[in-house]
Amino acid sequence: MTEDELVEAIRPFTRGSGDDAALWQPSRSHRSVISTDMLVEGVDFTRNLMPLEDAGWRAMAANVSDLCAMGARPVLATVALGFPKEIAREDVLALYRGLAECAAAAKLDIVGGDLSCARDLTIAVAVVGEVRPSDAKLRSEGRPGDVLAVTGPLGAARAGLGIARDGAAIGEDLELEALRAFRRPRPRVAEGRFLGASRNVTAMMDLSDGLSTDAARLALASGCAADIESVPVAPAARALAERRKEDPQRFALAGGEDFELLVAVRPRAFAHVATRYAARFKRDLQRVGTLRTGSGVSFNGARLDRSGWDHFAG
Amino acid sequence: MTEDELVEAIRPFTRGSGDDAALWQPSRSHRSVISTDMLVEGVDFTRNLMPLEDAGWRAMAANVSDLCAMGARPVLATVALGFPKEIAREDVLALYRGLAECAAAAKLDIVGGDLSCARDLTIAVAVVGEVRPSDAKLRSEGRPGDVLAVTGPLGAARAGLGIARDGAAIGEDLELEALRAFRRPRPRVAEGRFLGASRNVTAMMDLSDGLSTDAARLALASGCAADIESVPVAPAARALAERRKEDPQRFALAGGEDFELLVAVRPRAFAHVATRYAARFKRDLQRVGTLRTGSGVSFNGARLDRSGWDHFAG
Repeated sequence: MTEDELVEAIRPFTRGSGDDAALWQPSRSHRSVISTDMLVEGVDFTRNLMPLEDAGWRAMAANVSDLCAMGARPVLATVALGFPKEIAREDVLALYRGLAECAAAAKLDIVGGDLSCARDLTIAVAVVGEVRPSDAKLRSEGRPGDVLAVTGPLGAARAGLGIARDGAAIGEDLELEALRAFRRPRPRVAEGRFLGASRNVTAMMDLSDGLSTDAARLALASGCAADIESVPVAPAARALAERRKEDPQRFALAGGEDFELLVAVRPRAFAHVATRYAARFKRDLQRVGTLRTGSGVSFNGARLDRSGWDHFAG
Repeated sequence: MTEDELVEAIRPFTRGSGDDAALWQPSRSHRSVISTDMLVEGVDFTRNLMPLEDAGWRAMAANVSDLCAMGARPVLATVALGFPKEIAREDVLALYRGLAECAAAAKLDIVGGDLSCARDLTIAVAVVGEVRPSDAKLRSEGRPGDVLAVTGPLGAARAGLGIARDGAAIGEDLELEALRAFRRPRPRVAEGRFLGASRNVTAMMDLSDGLSTDAARLALASGCAADIESVPVAPAARALAERRKEDPQRFALAGGEDFELLVAVRPRAFAHVATRYAARFKRDLQRVGTLRTGSGVSFNGARLDRSGWDHFAG
């Protein structure tokens, strides 16, 4: 049973759009957005690969990124923590410090939470944001012909995980870049709001499980196939892949938790959107492929199996 | 380190009122409320004491009850689930069915969530509700002289836990009543909204950890002492306590998860509020004591140590 199959099985009990975050309407002129994510020690993070402060940061970043994917502005978060009774008070505070630092960077408040005992350290964050009704983006509105693009190069977080686990000799600067991407990923708040405000962006989601997996999700939700033509690879990911004699683009395709955004853009407007994006953010909105009628994902013409992260597969 | 001490230690990282739920303002005329709670198998529930459907119900009920305590109407929930890879698909669905049944009873939608691997089955729910600004109640606004009252008799859930664990011969009807209170507790949605709308109710919270513990929290937040004079005891709790040769009121004082509401009411208005409550709900708003200047909690004149549930004590 894969994660997506399980999500499908519980769908009858929920009123979800299939996006990671959900919209609701607290008043006629406003839309709120909510999302939740759970991180478990030993599954989503391990203390030997990152300090607890960084685990806290990443838990908040993963949730904030789900709001970014809808074009929303983060407003607040709640935090439910489960941890062993024997945990040191300093460890709980370190975790909370990381959560709070990421919250401050994304300009949202942690407004409350819950503490519980658990064998494994468990962090469940829920975040709420706001978005103008006309700016809210889903993953399901892409159309055949749309250009697929990402907000930045991919694979740095995967390279950071590899370096934290096995070490690597790719030079100090690239190692630091990769470790930072892995431990302190930056949710694309401003980028998400900018792209959400564009009428030419038809669908958006964040890349949490790798482009190969997440492009398949966007394509499936939009009732399309996705053809990936090229993958922008972060310098650290390229260096690590080459050192390991792996294909850098495939390395980056399978790399989760970059938290870049994946968008579908109307083809005739793509150049315009990309120019405005580059002027605003001093980096490129990088074309990775197109949507077309059909189903599935291809890379350079060959059908691509999902290579990204799935909690329940295998 | 107790749970309350830990909550105090992480307070600098948060913007919380000390209530279980937090208020925010999505637009000028609206207030939204959010709350989160985490339940962990082996700590908050065990499968040998209740089916997973009931565990799901209780997880949702605990969260909804936090909204009730603020006078809010529940609107939506997100659910983050962590569970072992080997779990049966039917078990996940049973858990979700219980969550969804309680959500339907409280008239809210489950709008999304997250699935994660974990050694222990872990349920983290976040609920959002709405409340008119003038109806929102905190636990911190009680005043010396206010009458303390509860929305119904206490101890039934504790009796149900005892019966599920050890059995008891208190008669089939009382056993069923106690087991239902334990496995399918009913959050006081209508009662909370009714009391929230009363200007004479100064403070409100839900009884999740037992009156002795929660009255101490309300008193501390309000800068008062609480004198408990009498405790309304649910029939099943009285029968079980007597069978065990325990004092029924002390049994009920320490009984958590009844999810009745505890309110502070202006003394001259109490009779009026109680009369209207009884007319509306066909049950009594039961006086349990008063707030006064000072600190701590007494029961029948003797200082009461906390006897309720604390995740991290001892």
